[in-house]
Amino acid sequence: MKSVALLLKSKADPSSVWSTSPTDSVFNAVTLMAQKNVGALLVLEQGAVVGILTERGCVRNMLLGERAPRNTLVREVMSAPVRYVQPHHTNEDCMALMTDKRLRHLPVMQDGKLLGLLSIGDLVKDIISEQNFIIQQLEHYIVGERG
Amino acid sequence: MKSVALLLKSKADPSSVWSTSPTDSVFNAVTLMAQKNVGALLVLEQGAVVGILTERGCVRNMLLGERAPRNTLVREVMSAPVRYVQPHHTNEDCMALMTDKRLRHLPVMQDGKLLGLLSIGDLVKDIISEQNFIIQQLEHYIVGERG
Repeated sequence: MKSVALLLKSKADPSSVWSTSPTDSVFNAVTLMAQKNVGALLVLEQGAVVGILTERGCVRNMLLGERAPRNTLVREVMSAPVRYVQPHHTNEDCMALMTDKRLRHLPVMQDGKLLGLLSIGDLVKDIISEQNFIIQQLEHYIVGERG
Repeated sequence: MKSVALLLKSKADPSSVWSTSPTDSVFNAVTLMAQKNVGALLVLEQGAVVGILTERGCVRNMLLGERAPRNTLVREVMSAPVRYVQPHHTNEDCMALMTDKRLRHLPVMQDGKLLGLLSIGDLVKDIISEQNFIIQQLEHYIVGERG
């Protein structure tokens, strides 16, 4: 088990989170998502997280609702409130929340301040490498006992 | 390491794969995606896999291209050709391919026949439970050696 604080530290640039504003157009927001090759943008208003814009949310709200991306505001299709984790939570807490609620992104917040964003890909990489490490350690131990 | 064949067997209903056709409208396809709560549909033509329609593909092609979902055909926005795996591949082969190519879905094919579809969620669940099992076995072994 690793804390969210440590997990964030292991990212290349933990505090870089791509974001948009509630009054931006969906067209501008999805342009940014494509440029940065990300699947979600946090929606910030005066520094506070007020929602999250996801690919799933865009498909459901924009395409099924037959809305024009230049004439739709981010706040009309974002998901809110946003589920988040705190630095003391563990990677397993995050994975349980993502699997249970079918989320692919979790912001990390402390005292109302945004510290970073974890994706399901970040967690998968981390859990697999952590478990591989434990397996290696146990195997070394067994070899040591026998040797 | 587990084979894709075994991995498919562990799914509740391994052969149920939601699909659409190249000449269906994107509107109908995303309606099905929402009803079934899935993030991708395979595109089939006379039983053969000719493409895959993903949420990412819909966002990029439909919203950035400002296309009307009722007037756009699935074949205009699907991804093709489709990367797939065969039953003898392993869960680790799948994860490497998904991480490397940034895919969330992999069809399983044999001799041109579709056997099922694996999502990144299926793989994550499997790898985590497999690694937990190995760790438990090694821990039991160590307790046995010492006891």
